[in-house]
Amino acid sequence: MVVERLPTFADVEAAAARLRGIAVRTPLLESEALNERAGGRVLLKAESLQRTGSFKVRGAYNTISQIDARAVVAYSSGNHAQGVAAAAKLLGKAATIVMPADAPAIKVENTRGYGAEVRLYDRQRESREAIGAEIAARTGAALVRPYDDPRIIAGQGTAGLEIAEQARDRGAAPDLALMPCGGGGLIAGCALALTHAFPGIAVYAVEPDGLDDTRRSLKAGERVANAPGATSICDALLLPTPGEFTFALNQKLLAGGLTVSDDEVRSAIAFAFRHLKLVLEPGGAVALAAVLSGKLSLAGRTVAVVLSGGNVDPALFAAAITGRSA
Amino acid sequence: MVVERLPTFADVEAAAARLRGIAVRTPLLESEALNERAGGRVLLKAESLQRTGSFKVRGAYNTISQIDARAVVAYSSGNHAQGVAAAAKLLGKAATIVMPADAPAIKVENTRGYGAEVRLYDRQRESREAIGAEIAARTGAALVRPYDDPRIIAGQGTAGLEIAEQARDRGAAPDLALMPCGGGGLIAGCALALTHAFPGIAVYAVEPDGLDDTRRSLKAGERVANAPGATSICDALLLPTPGEFTFALNQKLLAGGLTVSDDEVRSAIAFAFRHLKLVLEPGGAVALAAVLSGKLSLAGRTVAVVLSGGNVDPALFAAAITGRSA
Repeated sequence: MVVERLPTFADVEAAAARLRGIAVRTPLLESEALNERAGGRVLLKAESLQRTGSFKVRGAYNTISQIDARAVVAYSSGNHAQGVAAAAKLLGKAATIVMPADAPAIKVENTRGYGAEVRLYDRQRESREAIGAEIAARTGAALVRPYDDPRIIAGQGTAGLEIAEQARDRGAAPDLALMPCGGGGLIAGCALALTHAFPGIAVYAVEPDGLDDTRRSLKAGERVANAPGATSICDALLLPTPGEFTFALNQKLLAGGLTVSDDEVRSAIAFAFRHLKLVLEPGGAVALAAVLSGKLSLAGRTVAVVLSGGNVDPALFAAAITGRSA
Repeated sequence: MVVERLPTFADVEAAAARLRGIAVRTPLLESEALNERAGGRVLLKAESLQRTGSFKVRGAYNTISQIDARAVVAYSSGNHAQGVAAAAKLLGKAATIVMPADAPAIKVENTRGYGAEVRLYDRQRESREAIGAEIAARTGAALVRPYDDPRIIAGQGTAGLEIAEQARDRGAAPDLALMPCGGGGLIAGCALALTHAFPGIAVYAVEPDGLDDTRRSLKAGERVANAPGATSICDALLLPTPGEFTFALNQKLLAGGLTVSDDEVRSAIAFAFRHLKLVLEPGGAVALAAVLSGKLSLAGRTVAVVLSGGNVDPALFAAAITGRSA
């Protein structure tokens, strides 16, 4: 058993070496329409174009490639599920995924599509942690946590490493970085990479209104929880509190948190459809929503924005782009 | 007046130099789900992520940057319109665009968004060529033809040059290339670049059913026309005959033509939404549709596919991804 410690920049670099040829080096895109609207320069890291349609395969592969067990189990609302299922398949391990019964159908289908077994549970009445732990104990499968694991954080951080390299390739040095925050693994890992590359950068977590546990925890100086029952269309970001590892890092590395409403998220999905030609899921669009709704002044500044995923049900997407209700 | 001649590979290279820093080097994407479905290796050139949402800005900029006149005029169903409008803006020239009154609203709005003046015309009763020529004669604006111009062809060919470079970067050598064909400028230019890089490659034009003028012209050995009134949801590909320059090149360089139905195109749009997380317009999805509907056997082969544009009206897109009628 390895003693767990906070991951460092070197861990992100080691993860990048493991992920070479596995994770897609997703493009860093730029849009004239968006730059004009924002009044600054926006660099978009399109992790929606990542294998499995979200960044999650980075952390999952980095973790599972360091696990001896021949089977893994994970609980996830969907993107971690697909990431673990795809990474396990690549590494020749069996995977069981515990998913909420109300997860988007596309996420459940895709997870099964990678060959994983799916165990559905009731989000209101059952504990996914308990189910996952029970399966792990019974079958000997290793539990792959969704965010609160140093290997997961380092893996997700490889997206930040790429942002830094790709920004430098085009002579840009971001003043700011905005990215979605659920459990905080993506932003913790990316903040490790981005603050290493650009020491003055201000990294902000973006969360749905009412699910701003990280924003409030950063202010409070300790981990606080969201109100029970708080919800949003951002199914990927419905988590009660920051993780222990992720919060310890984020407390050191982040500048603060921003929140966006569901309507702002729908508008961002429609903007990405119309101007970026990208399919984004609600949770994947929150940082773009923060830019479009002017949560920070970007005049004359360069901002890196992570578009973290694109696994969205057709009906929700159709409603967002046509302005009709789903 | 320069004497017009067929463009060569050197013209494509010269265009690439002009377009450096102007055209986006769009990503060459790969999808596990698509490779499995196709039974081969599919490399997707995502020109939907190009500035203006289609490849057209490549040829437009290459052409307008070689024009002395201070104003330009063009006729187009939409993507060339946006390409010319954006290129003219970049080069500080005024642009007037003649567009059919039934063009997708998003294309008309975007063209105006780049600062161009739009003159709408009735596709059944008026001749866009005549209107364009009249405006050119009256105002002194230079006419920027949509495809049948050596400078346009060379500009579009820069997409093919990038495919060759990006394929080599990942150790791939395409056996086949499939791309959308309307007037034939994109495929003529890309075929120049691709047959130069990969002498054995077979390049196929993909057209909508009933609008297969290039396929039939290649068979007949001369330019033949589509039946009057033939139509399709592929608004970008509704052209009566191949161009003179484009056909002269395509006759030398192409292996043949394939056709796809509107339903096959809708399915390809839905596949791109679900698995690629890309927004494609109907005309931009025809080559993908040919792959998905098995028009050629791809077993054990590598195929380059151009996704040429993503300027699609929300209602059509919503219908394609939900399976409901528009």
